[in-house]
Amino acid sequence: MAKDIYHYIVKEALEREHWVVVSDPFIMKSKRLKARLEIDLELEQILIAEKQSADGVRKILVEVKSFLRPSLVHELHSVIGQYFNYSIGVEELAENYDLYLAIPIYAYEKLIEIGLFNVVVERLSIKIIVFNPATKTITLWKE
Amino acid sequence: MAKDIYHYIVKEALEREHWVVVSDPFIMKSKRLKARLEIDLELEQILIAEKQSADGVRKILVEVKSFLRPSLVHELHSVIGQYFNYSIGVEELAENYDLYLAIPIYAYEKLIEIGLFNVVVERLSIKIIVFNPATKTITLWKE
Repeated sequence: MAKDIYHYIVKEALEREHWVVVSDPFIMKSKRLKARLEIDLELEQILIAEKQSADGVRKILVEVKSFLRPSLVHELHSVIGQYFNYSIGVEELAENYDLYLAIPIYAYEKLIEIGLFNVVVERLSIKIIVFNPATKTITLWKE
Repeated sequence: MAKDIYHYIVKEALEREHWVVVSDPFIMKSKRLKARLEIDLELEQILIAEKQSADGVRKILVEVKSFLRPSLVHELHSVIGQYFNYSIGVEELAENYDLYLAIPIYAYEKLIEIGLFNVVVERLSIKIIVFNPATKTITLWKE
Protein backbone atom coordinates (compact mmCIF):
# COMPACT_ATOMS: atom_id res chain seq x y z
CA MET A 1 0.00 0.00 0.00
CA ALA A 2 1.09 3.57 -0.52
CA LYS A 3 2.97 5.04 2.39
CA ASP A 4 0.90 7.13 4.69
CA ILE A 5 1.67 10.85 4.41
CA TYR A 6 2.87 10.88 7.99
CA HIS A 7 5.19 7.92 7.64
CA TYR A 8 8.36 10.03 7.48
CA ILE A 9 7.25 12.38 10.22
CA VAL A 10 6.68 9.52 12.68
CA LYS A 11 9.98 7.94 11.69
CA GLU A 12 11.83 11.19 12.35
CA ALA A 13 10.01 11.79 15.64
CA LEU A 14 10.89 8.30 16.89
CA GLU A 15 14.51 8.60 15.80
CA ARG A 16 14.70 11.80 17.80
CA GLU A 17 13.60 9.72 20.82
CA HIS A 18 16.54 7.35 20.22
CA TRP A 19 14.65 4.64 18.43
CA VAL A 20 16.56 2.94 15.64
CA VAL A 21 14.66 1.98 12.50
CA VAL A 22 15.29 -1.70 11.73
CA SER A 23 12.79 -2.21 8.90
CA ASP A 24 10.81 0.19 6.76
CA PRO A 25 8.41 -1.44 6.09
CA PHE A 26 8.34 -4.58 8.22
CA ILE A 27 6.98 -7.54 6.28
CA MET A 28 5.45 -10.47 8.12
CA LYS A 29 4.90 -13.66 6.21
CA SER A 30 3.26 -16.41 8.17
CA LYS A 31 2.79 -19.90 6.77
CA ARG A 32 0.19 -20.70 9.37
CA LEU A 33 -1.78 -17.52 8.74
CA LYS A 34 -1.18 -17.73 4.99
CA ALA A 35 -1.02 -13.97 4.86
CA ARG A 36 1.55 -11.33 4.07
CA LEU A 37 1.18 -8.38 6.40
CA GLU A 38 3.09 -5.15 5.97
CA ILE A 39 3.58 -2.88 8.98
CA ASP A 40 5.06 0.59 8.47
CA LEU A 41 8.04 0.51 10.81
CA GLU A 42 10.09 -1.84 12.96
CA LEU A 43 12.21 -0.03 15.54
CA GLU A 44 14.37 -0.94 18.48
CA GLN A 45 15.92 0.73 21.45
CA ILE A 46 18.68 -0.50 23.73
CA LEU A 47 17.55 -0.61 27.33
CA ILE A 48 20.33 0.04 29.81
CA ALA A 49 20.17 -2.25 32.80
CA GLU A 50 19.08 -0.87 36.14
CA LYS A 51 20.40 -2.72 39.19
CA GLN A 52 20.21 -6.51 38.78
CA SER A 53 18.34 -6.70 35.49
CA ALA A 54 20.28 -7.38 32.30
CA ASP A 55 20.62 -4.99 29.38
CA GLY A 56 18.04 -5.64 26.71
CA VAL A 57 16.52 -4.48 23.49
CA ARG A 58 12.97 -3.20 23.25
CA LYS A 59 11.33 -3.81 19.91
CA ILE A 60 8.25 -2.10 18.55
CA LEU A 61 6.20 -2.20 15.38
CA VAL A 62 4.41 0.96 14.36
CA GLU A 63 1.53 1.41 11.93
CA VAL A 64 1.05 5.05 10.98
CA LYS A 65 -2.45 6.39 10.34
CA SER A 66 -3.39 9.81 9.05
CA PHE A 67 -7.15 9.84 9.75
CA LEU A 68 -7.72 12.21 6.87
CA ARG A 69 -10.95 10.60 5.63
CA PRO A 70 -14.09 12.65 6.16
CA SER A 71 -15.76 10.03 8.37
CA LEU A 72 -13.79 9.30 11.51
CA VAL A 73 -16.02 6.30 12.30
CA HIS A 74 -15.47 4.68 8.90
CA GLU A 75 -11.73 5.16 9.16
CA LEU A 76 -11.91 3.74 12.68
CA HIS A 77 -13.39 0.48 11.33
CA SER A 78 -10.48 -0.20 9.03
CA VAL A 79 -7.81 0.97 11.50
CA ILE A 80 -9.18 -1.21 14.30
CA GLY A 81 -9.43 -4.26 12.03
CA GLN A 82 -5.92 -3.69 10.74
CA TYR A 83 -4.51 -3.41 14.27
CA PHE A 84 -6.32 -6.54 15.41
CA ASN A 85 -5.23 -8.56 12.37
CA TYR A 86 -1.64 -7.35 12.76
CA SER A 87 -1.69 -8.27 16.43
CA ILE A 88 -2.57 -11.85 15.44
CA GLY A 89 0.38 -11.78 13.03
CA VAL A 90 2.72 -10.41 15.72
CA GLU A 91 1.87 -13.34 18.01
CA GLU A 92 3.40 -15.64 15.39
CA LEU A 93 6.78 -13.91 15.48
CA ALA A 94 9.72 -15.48 17.27
CA GLU A 95 10.62 -12.20 18.97
CA ASN A 96 8.60 -10.05 21.34
CA TYR A 97 7.22 -6.87 19.83
CA ASP A 98 4.88 -4.19 21.09
CA LEU A 99 2.52 -3.12 18.34
CA TYR A 100 1.59 0.57 18.17
CA LEU A 101 -0.82 2.64 16.17
CA ALA A 102 0.61 6.11 15.46
CA ILE A 103 -2.16 8.71 15.34
CA PRO A 104 -1.80 12.47 14.72
CA ILE A 105 -2.80 14.66 17.65
CA TYR A 106 -5.68 16.39 15.83
CA ALA A 107 -7.33 13.01 15.16
CA TYR A 108 -6.57 11.62 18.62
CA GLU A 109 -8.25 14.59 20.30
CA LYS A 110 -11.40 13.93 18.29
CA LEU A 111 -11.23 10.16 18.75
CA ILE A 112 -11.10 10.27 22.55
CA GLU A 113 -14.37 12.21 22.46
CA ILE A 114 -15.97 9.14 20.85
CA GLY A 115 -16.93 6.64 23.54
CA LEU A 116 -16.80 3.82 20.99
CA PHE A 117 -13.10 4.50 20.37
CA ASN A 118 -12.26 4.36 24.07
CA VAL A 119 -14.20 1.13 24.62
CA VAL A 120 -12.54 -0.56 21.61
CA VAL A 121 -9.03 0.57 22.61
CA GLU A 122 -9.63 -0.82 26.09
CA ARG A 123 -11.11 -4.13 24.91
CA LEU A 124 -8.41 -4.86 22.35
CA SER A 125 -5.58 -3.40 24.50
CA ILE A 126 -4.53 -1.15 21.64
CA LYS A 127 -1.23 0.67 22.17
CA ILE A 128 -1.05 4.17 20.73
CA ILE A 129 1.63 6.72 19.90
CA VAL A 130 0.23 10.23 19.46
CA PHE A 131 2.37 12.53 17.34
CA ASN A 132 2.32 16.17 16.40
CA PRO A 133 2.82 16.53 12.64
CA ALA A 134 3.74 20.21 12.93
CA THR A 135 6.56 19.79 15.42
CA LYS A 136 7.48 16.25 14.33
CA THR A 137 7.44 15.07 17.93
CA ILE A 138 5.80 12.31 19.95
CA THR A 139 3.31 13.78 22.39
CA LEU A 140 2.00 10.62 24.09
CA TRP A 141 2.74 6.92 24.51
CA LYS A 142 -0.40 5.10 25.55
CA GLU A 143 0.08 1.49 26.65
CA MET B 1 -22.86 4.65 3.16
CA ALA B 2 -23.96 3.31 -0.21
CA LYS B 3 -25.78 0.03 -0.02
CA ASP B 4 -23.67 -2.97 -0.78
CA ILE B 5 -24.51 -4.53 -4.16
CA TYR B 6 -25.61 -7.71 -2.42
CA HIS B 7 -27.90 -6.00 0.06
CA TYR B 8 -31.10 -6.93 -1.77
CA ILE B 9 -29.96 -10.45 -2.53
CA VAL B 10 -29.27 -11.20 1.15
CA LYS B 11 -32.58 -9.62 2.13
CA GLU B 12 -34.46 -11.80 -0.33
CA ALA B 13 -32.55 -14.94 0.70
CA LEU B 14 -33.34 -14.35 4.38
CA GLU B 15 -37.00 -13.59 3.69
CA ARG B 16 -37.16 -16.91 1.87
CA GLU B 17 -35.96 -18.52 5.12
CA HIS B 18 -38.89 -16.89 6.96
CA TRP B 19 -37.00 -13.97 8.43
CA VAL B 20 -38.97 -10.73 8.59
CA VAL B 21 -37.14 -7.49 7.86
CA VAL B 22 -37.72 -5.03 10.71
CA SER B 23 -35.29 -2.27 9.73
CA ASP B 24 -33.42 -1.53 6.53
CA PRO B 25 -31.00 -0.11 7.56
CA PHE B 26 -30.82 -0.45 11.34
CA ILE B 27 -29.47 2.71 12.96
CA MET B 28 -27.83 2.54 16.37
CA LYS B 29 -27.30 5.78 18.20
CA SER B 30 -25.57 5.43 21.51
CA LYS B 31 -25.08 8.35 23.86
CA ARG B 32 -22.38 6.50 25.77
CA LEU B 33 -20.48 5.54 22.62
CA LYS B 34 -21.16 8.91 20.99
CA ALA B 35 -21.39 7.19 17.66
CA ARG B 36 -24.03 6.56 15.02
CA LEU B 37 -23.65 3.08 13.58
CA GLU B 38 -25.64 1.86 10.61
CA ILE B 39 -26.08 -1.88 10.11
CA ASP B 40 -27.62 -3.13 6.87
CA LEU B 41 -30.54 -5.19 8.15
CA GLU B 42 -32.49 -5.96 11.30
CA LEU B 43 -34.58 -9.13 11.05
CA GLU B 44 -36.64 -11.29 13.33
CA GLN B 45 -38.14 -14.72 13.35
CA ILE B 46 -40.81 -16.14 15.61
CA LEU B 47 -39.60 -19.19 17.48
CA ILE B 48 -42.32 -21.71 18.21
CA ALA B 49 -42.06 -23.13 21.71
CA GLU B 50 -40.92 -26.68 22.17
CA LYS B 51 -42.13 -28.45 25.31
CA GLN B 52 -41.94 -26.22 28.39
CA SER B 53 -40.16 -23.22 26.88
CA ALA B 54 -42.14 -20.15 25.87
CA ASP B 55 -42.57 -18.83 22.35
CA GLY B 56 -40.04 -16.18 21.54
CA VAL B 57 -38.60 -13.94 18.90
CA ARG B 58 -35.09 -14.34 17.58
CA LYS B 59 -33.51 -11.08 16.44
CA ILE B 60 -30.50 -10.68 14.21
CA LEU B 61 -28.55 -7.83 12.69
CA VAL B 62 -26.82 -8.45 9.38
CA GLU B 63 -24.02 -6.49 7.74
CA VAL B 64 -23.62 -7.43 4.08
CA LYS B 65 -20.15 -7.49 2.52
CA SER B 66 -19.30 -8.01 -1.13
CA PHE B 67 -15.52 -8.57 -0.90
CA LEU B 68 -15.07 -7.19 -4.40
CA ARG B 69 -11.84 -5.28 -3.67
CA PRO B 70 -8.72 -6.70 -5.31
CA SER B 71 -6.95 -7.31 -1.99
CA LEU B 72 -8.83 -9.74 0.23
CA VAL B 73 -6.55 -8.93 3.18
CA HIS B 74 -7.15 -5.16 2.95
CA GLU B 75 -10.89 -5.71 2.77
CA LEU B 76 -10.60 -8.08 5.71
CA HIS B 77 -9.10 -5.30 7.88
CA SER B 78 -12.07 -3.01 7.41
CA VAL B 79 -14.68 -5.77 7.67
CA ILE B 80 -13.20 -7.13 10.91
CA GLY B 81 -12.97 -3.67 12.45
CA GLN B 82 -16.52 -2.87 11.43
CA TYR B 83 -17.84 -6.12 12.92
CA PHE B 84 -15.96 -5.56 16.17
CA ASN B 85 -17.09 -1.94 16.48
CA TYR B 86 -20.70 -2.92 15.72
CA SER B 87 -20.53 -5.68 18.31
CA ILE B 88 -19.60 -3.06 20.92
CA GLY B 89 -22.62 -1.05 19.77
CA VAL B 90 -24.92 -4.07 19.93
CA GLU B 91 -23.96 -4.64 23.59
CA GLU B 92 -25.52 -1.26 24.37
CA LEU B 93 -28.93 -2.23 23.00
CA ALA B 94 -31.79 -3.08 25.31
CA GLU B 95 -32.69 -6.16 23.28
CA ASN B 96 -30.65 -9.24 22.51
CA TYR B 97 -29.36 -9.45 18.95
CA ASP B 98 -27.03 -11.82 17.17
CA LEU B 99 -24.77 -9.90 14.83
CA TYR B 100 -23.90 -11.53 11.51
CA LEU B 101 -21.57 -10.76 8.66
CA ALA B 102 -23.08 -11.86 5.32
CA ILE B 103 -20.35 -12.97 2.91
CA PRO B 104 -20.78 -14.27 -0.66
CA ILE B 105 -19.74 -17.88 -1.17
CA TYR B 106 -16.93 -17.07 -3.63
CA ALA B 107 -15.25 -14.83 -1.07
CA TYR B 108 -15.89 -17.18 1.85
CA GLU B 109 -14.21 -20.07 0.02
CA LYS B 110 -11.09 -17.94 -0.46
CA LEU B 111 -11.20 -16.51 3.07
CA ILE B 112 -11.24 -19.89 4.82
CA GLU B 113 -8.01 -20.70 2.99
CA ILE B 114 -6.41 -17.79 4.84
CA GLY B 115 -5.33 -18.91 8.31
CA LEU B 116 -5.51 -15.31 9.55
CA PHE B 117 -9.23 -15.15 8.75
CA ASN B 118 -9.96 -18.33 10.69
CA VAL B 119 -7.95 -17.21 13.73
CA VAL B 120 -9.66 -13.79 13.78
CA VAL B 121 -13.17 -15.27 13.38
CA GLU B 122 -12.46 -17.63 16.27
CA ARG B 123 -10.95 -14.96 18.54
CA LEU B 124 -13.70 -12.42 18.02
CA SER B 125 -16.50 -15.05 17.86
CA ILE B 126 -17.66 -13.65 14.53
CA LYS B 127 -20.98 -15.04 13.28
CA ILE B 128 -21.25 -15.49 9.54
CA ILE B 129 -23.99 -16.05 6.97
CA VAL B 130 -22.66 -17.36 3.65
CA PHE B 131 -24.90 -16.66 0.67
CA ASN B 132 -24.91 -17.61 -2.96
CA PRO B 133 -25.53 -14.49 -5.07
CA ALA B 134 -26.49 -16.56 -8.14
CA THR B 135 -29.24 -18.59 -6.49
CA LYS B 136 -30.13 -15.93 -3.90
CA THR B 137 -29.98 -18.50 -1.13
CA ILE B 138 -28.23 -18.88 2.22
CA THR B 139 -25.71 -21.71 2.06
CA LEU B 140 -24.30 -21.62 5.60
CA TRP B 141 -24.98 -20.20 9.06
CA LYS B 142 -21.77 -20.18 11.07
CA GLU B 143 -22.18 -19.39 14.76
